[in-house]
Parts: sequence; structure tokens; C-alpha cells
Amino acid sequence: MSRLVVIGGVAAGMSAAAKAKRTNPDLEVVAYERTHFVSYGACGLPYFVAGEVPRVEDLVARTPEQFKKQGILALPRHEVVEVDYPNRTLTVRALDEGRTFTDRFDHLVVATGARPVVPDLPGVGLAGVFTLRVPEDGVAVREWAARARRAAIVGAGYVGLEMAEAFRRLGLAVTLIEAEDRVMPMADPEVSDQLAEALAKNGVEVATGTRVTALLGEERVAAVETTAGRVEAELVLISVGIRPNADLAKSFGVALGPTGAIRVDEQQRTNLEDVYAAGDVAESRHLLTNEPYWLPLGDVANKHGRTAGTVIGGGRAAFKGVLGTAITKVFDRTVAMTGLTEQAARKRGLEVGTAAIRSRDRAHYMPGGHPLFVKLVYQAASGRLLGAQIVGHGNDALRIDAVAALIHKGATVEDLRALDLAYAPPFSPVWDPLLVAANQAK
Amino acid sequence: MSRLVVIGGVAAGMSAAAKAKRTNPDLEVVAYERTHFVSYGACGLPYFVAGEVPRVEDLVARTPEQFKKQGILALPRHEVVEVDYPNRTLTVRALDEGRTFTDRFDHLVVATGARPVVPDLPGVGLAGVFTLRVPEDGVAVREWAARARRAAIVGAGYVGLEMAEAFRRLGLAVTLIEAEDRVMPMADPEVSDQLAEALAKNGVEVATGTRVTALLGEERVAAVETTAGRVEAELVLISVGIRPNADLAKSFGVALGPTGAIRVDEQQRTNLEDVYAAGDVAESRHLLTNEPYWLPLGDVANKHGRTAGTVIGGGRAAFKGVLGTAITKVFDRTVAMTGLTEQAARKRGLEVGTAAIRSRDRAHYMPGGHPLFVKLVYQAASGRLLGAQIVGHGNDALRIDAVAALIHKGATVEDLRALDLAYAPPFSPVWDPLLVAANQAK
Repeated sequence: MSRLVVIGGVAAGMSAAAKAKRTNPDLEVVAYERTHFVSYGACGLPYFVAGEVPRVEDLVARTPEQFKKQGILALPRHEVVEVDYPNRTLTVRALDEGRTFTDRFDHLVVATGARPVVPDLPGVGLAGVFTLRVPEDGVAVREWAARARRAAIVGAGYVGLEMAEAFRRLGLAVTLIEAEDRVMPMADPEVSDQLAEALAKNGVEVATGTRVTALLGEERVAAVETTAGRVEAELVLISVGIRPNADLAKSFGVALGPTGAIRVDEQQRTNLEDVYAAGDVAESRHLLTNEPYWLPLGDVANKHGRTAGTVIGGGRAAFKGVLGTAITKVFDRTVAMTGLTEQAARKRGLEVGTAAIRSRDRAHYMPGGHPLFVKLVYQAASGRLLGAQIVGHGNDALRIDAVAALIHKGATVEDLRALDLAYAPPFSPVWDPLLVAANQAK
Repeated sequence: MSRLVVIGGVAAGMSAAAKAKRTNPDLEVVAYERTHFVSYGACGLPYFVAGEVPRVEDLVARTPEQFKKQGILALPRHEVVEVDYPNRTLTVRALDEGRTFTDRFDHLVVATGARPVVPDLPGVGLAGVFTLRVPEDGVAVREWAARARRAAIVGAGYVGLEMAEAFRRLGLAVTLIEAEDRVMPMADPEVSDQLAEALAKNGVEVATGTRVTALLGEERVAAVETTAGRVEAELVLISVGIRPNADLAKSFGVALGPTGAIRVDEQQRTNLEDVYAAGDVAESRHLLTNEPYWLPLGDVANKHGRTAGTVIGGGRAAFKGVLGTAITKVFDRTVAMTGLTEQAARKRGLEVGTAAIRSRDRAHYMPGGHPLFVKLVYQAASGRLLGAQIVGHGNDALRIDAVAALIHKGATVEDLRALDLAYAPPFSPVWDPLLVAANQAK
């Protein structure tokens, strides 16, 4: 019987396992996962820490018992430590039992995810210094936060911003430290500025252009030493980025791409026959630049996994790529983006036009409306849409999906201007903010 | 000096006036409006009746004084009663002064809107029987509702559904009477069923497959006689549809299209030189069927007006057409649609596939989520997207815009499946409901 082994049983891995089994029920499927949980929503960890999600188990989509009913063996606390590719075997350590055993595979999916970058700072090993990546991290941070008064967050990307909100919800004083000159530096400055306002309004101290030089304390962290002075904190969260967990794959000959993640084709195949990669450890293709792009997000991981699983099961599937669409909530603001920012486009030497407008998310006379900011980025010569950024409130920023759809189809600002979008007073001004932006674009 | 006269100073008319003046500041611009208000948001009337919008004046986007500063003369309570096209003159009645005068034009925009259909029923002239179209209607309905206990609504389309919610908010007992076998019969049955649930949950009596035979009462309405019995009501709202106000235009030779609205080209020109039509009185082209289509909505009216104004001012503009995108709120449910429903597509003899799914509007573990229903309609052979319907909550149904964008670009279900949509736990399950539907489509 043909045997599929999945290394890493979270989003991509379990998607691959489930889809492969559904596509070919004769397949033997086993998934090894290092942590205590399989099939969990890591993106939900900030909401677990904040207490919005009561139990860490709530993040789990399907348990090993549920996978078992589907004929899939999902084993948490099992770490694959070595792969002997020529012999199609691997060495697995059962972490709770301390024993090591060998397994064999016909198909292998590498879905080992990513790990947080931890800068080599003095004091980084002190108790109370955390990263947030796996459920165990979430549990530890939540426990620690319950006894802390002041939190410092190093890095103001998605996780840093979400965690600023989480810690404020828990009543902690929060200082957000960012080396770049603004929060969410992957967005354009107008977006960063609006987020900075939201952070200030919600009592988050923001220190941009500030580098951490050391973490201070005896055993437990007590303060962060920065280029702009000392920040007292009993809890420090480091969220300066993540890197693909590609070492194991590399060790048995899997080729990485220029991003440092595993290079795959549209079927998620690696350079090695019968070996697939999916999720945060694998690259995608950027649909605008046609270059390898690393977008370690949960929805992309699921698509990778589904594609690999379909192909392994004998079906047809292709994952074409990504636009970098993303959304996040920062207190009462929602930030969404797709495609290229202005700064990213200019960095690539593209001649771009932009249109940035401030509108509302409902008719002027409807109570309860919110400001809605839209920025479009497009090729100056052709008007071809390259990207959009929205700062809104709640689901009103889901408008980003309409722009993503247009970019997918190579559409122009002119196309956007001609869109027949949904209008009613509770949902939009009579001119949808996307159309206002498109009308402003030259 | 070149003179533009606009007949009807609401959405389309005032958009045309304002855009023409901006495009060519030398233009003389005058707009005649029959009601007491220019430039008002008629779509907001249900929210005014409900009390969510405090004053009817709040619906006004710009007052005559504001237009005056822009160099535009906007005259409410002025009705154009005759147009002498060969001589480029028109007769205007100043309703508050009782006098009639003559004006001249070089360019004419007919933006006379639409009027409610009032069936020829016994008792239809009784006090307490209303339609809802202009601000004066809203004021009258709100006043009457304050002294009524029971309302009957005849017609369960957009206005009927919105008014059911408005009357319930005001504490009235509400019976919604619909001749077709379900509410919102322009949607597919799955959508109607979900709305019927929402109506029932919110205490609205729904009588479908029921025709009104008479309105009963002495002077004031007291009850509605129907094929299913008698409904007691001190207030009756008739919302069985609207018709274009095309009589004036027809009287001086403007050609109508097959929909009964004025036929226009992409520059909103009618068959008569120098005469344009815009808004609810004018047709659009349906982008999927390429046939004339009448979509009397505020956002379309604004686009018509802007296009006509640009062209009259000497600029370039084209209004390409509509997809029938629409959205409405019915209590805590939002209904959105674009393109063709299954029933509309089948009526046209198209071989269609459909995919209908029930998902959620956020990750399973996030509190406060709501069900989200998506139905896709596509050409069976090619997979080309024809339409979508969403029943959701709040802005989560704005996802319809992404489907509208795809349909605009002639995209297929396969394209939708490949979309990189915005995902984060507060905004979507890891598989966006649109993708779930696309994955289910064959």
C-alpha cells in the first residue's frame, strides 16, 4: 500500500493529509507534529492570549481522534529528526516517550513551518522573554501576562500589532519598539500613520526608530535597554519576523529558493521526486512580479496543502501563486492590503501612479459610520492595478478582495472605475470608496 | 454662454450639474427639482422613517446654497411641465409661487427619476396608504407611523423588506404581503428562505402567495383585504415596484428602450441631439447579457450623472453598464447579489452550474461570528461566472464585490478558486467562504 508521510501537522500538513486521503482512500497517511496539537489555527494565538478565545484547544480544527475516523494517523509530540531520502525512510522521535523509530514513505510532504527570529541580544534567554508561534507559546505568554503589569513588544509587524491589542485588553501597559521609523513598515507610510494614531488612542507607547540593545534582569526580565532609553517590562515579546524551518529538508537534498524557503512548482513538488513542500516552509510565486515570494500565512498554507494532497492522491491541482493579500485588526482599525505597496513598487523601479482617499464606510447620514482610507497603486503608463491598501473598521476593509480580484485578472484603474459595486446606505456611500479612489487616479 | 438645464435635481441630476460645471466652469447650469429637496439620498428614506436618521434634511448631500457657491442654480419646487425641443426652450412651473415661466437650454439632462407603481385597488386613495419615494413621503409615513399600531406592507422587494425593519423598530406590528410565493422573489429561493427566517425571528408576519384585493376603511385605512383573509392595519405601504418617469421626455420625442426607460448610449445621450438622460429614468446596459437593463439604484444614478456631466462639460467619459449588483440589510441579515441569479439564468435558457455553501464570517474559534451563505452561478460548460448571492451579516457580504470584479473581467470559477483573498481570524475562516463555494463548484 502506498504511504504518505507528512512532516508537520498544522495547516498545510493536515490539509495535505486530509485531501490526499479523500482523493485516494487507499493511501496510508501519517502526520508527525512536534507540538502537542495538530491542525490548529496559529493565527488565532493573539486572540487566545487576549482571552477572546478561552482555551488553546479551541484553536484546533480537528483532533487526532477526528483524523483517525478519516483513516489518518496524526501524531503530536513526534519530531522527524532525519530523512533518508534514497531509502525513502525517516527517523522519528516520540518526544513524550523518549524513543526513536524509523518509518518509510512513498510520498513525503514537508510542512515544517517557520520559526521566529530571535536576535542575539544579551539577556534574550531571561524568563519572561517570549516569541509567539506555537500553542505552547500562547499558553506560556498568557500565563506570564497574568502576573505582569508592563509588556514590551519588539517588532511592529502583524504579530506585534495584534499582541499590542491583546496585552492592552489584559490591562497591561504596552510599549511597542520598532527599529524602522514607523509601525507596520511593510505598508506605505499613510497606513503606518493611521495605525500609530490607533495605537496612541488605545494607550500603547510606540518607540519607532528604536533598536533593542539588551534585555535586562536577574533570571526574569525586568526591562528592555534600547537606543532610546530603558523600557521597564516584566514581559517581552519578540516579534521581529520568522524564517522557514527548512533545515531538515535541506539536509536530505531539498533545494531552497532565493527566499530561503523551499522551492516548489505549481503542484508543490520539490526538486526531489515524491517530496512535496507546503505551508510556511515553502515558497509561492508572486502573481504580479512572477518571482518567488514567501508569504507565510495560514490561508496560503491551506491552499498549498490542499494542492499537494490532491496531487499525491492522484488528482489534478495547481497553486498559481499569491498577491500578498493580508488583513489584520489593530484595535478598532482594520488594515488590509494586496499586491504591491507604493514603496515596494518604486523599489522595483516601477513608474507608478497612486491615488489615496479618505471616505466613509456608509452614507453620510447613517449613524455609526467609520472613516475608510483607500490607496491604489498602479502602473503610470498603462493604469494597470498593482496594489491597494485599506484602513477601515471591521469588515469594511474586505473591499480589498475586489481589488485583489481585479489584479488577478490584470485589470486597470479604468476597470475599477467601471465596477458595479454593492451600494446601500448602511454599507457604503453612494460612491464606494474604491470608486472614489479610482476616480481620483489619473 | 452655453446653458445646461437639468430636469430633476436628485442623484443623477445634481451629479450631472456638478460634474458639468467642474469640467467646464463657463457653463451656466440650472437644475429644476419638483420636491422640496435637491441632492438627497432617497435610499436613506427607510432609515429616516425608522428614526435612525433623525431629520429628513440629513439625507441631503448638498443644499441649493452650497450649489450656488459652485455656480449652480438648483431650484426645488420647480416642475418642468413642457419641453419645446426644436426651439430649445422649456416651461417651468414654480410650484410655491403658482407662476410659470420659460427657460432655454443648449444641453438638457432628463433626470426625472421613477415613480412608485400604485395598483388600481378599491380604497387605494384612503388616508394612511403610502408609497415611499421622495422625502415628503418619508415625512408623511413617519408621522403616520407614530400614531399607528399595525402596518401592512404590500410587496416584499428591497423597499418592502427595509420598511418591515423600519416599522418593527418603531414598535409596529407588521404584516408583509407578497403576491409571489416568497419574499424577495428576484433572488433565488435559498436567499428568500433565509430572509423569511429573519423576518419571522423579528416578529414580521409574512403572507406570501397572497394578493391584495382591496384597502378597507372610512377615510382612513383600517385593513387590507387579501386572497388569504383580512389584515388589520392603520398604515399601508405599497412597495410593489417603480416605473421610470419618462412621460415628459417621450412627449418631446425622446426614444424609450425596451425596458420603458430612456434609451441612452455610453455617454448618456438620448436619440435627440443635446439631450441626455441619467438616473432612474434611463436604461443601462447589462454587462453579462449585453442587453438594455433598468437598474434604478442610487449608485448607478450617480454614475450616469457624472458621465453625462463630464461629456456636456467637454470631457470624455463612458458608462459601460451594470451587473445588477445590489445589497440590502434586513434586520441582522445582509443580502447581496451580483450578475444573474440561477432562476434568471435558466429563464434565459443558459446551462448553468451552481454551488451553494454555508460557512462563517470568521475563524471557528473567534467569538461573535455569523453564518455566511454563498451561492455561485456559472456557465456549466466554461465555468464562466454569471452571478453570486450572499446572505451574511453586516459588511461581511461585501465579498460580493470580489465576485462582481471577477464577472466584470469575464472570469471563471477557476479564477475565483485561485484568488488570494484577505484572511485573518476576525474576518474569515482560513478558507474564505467564496473559496469554499468555488472549491465546491464542478
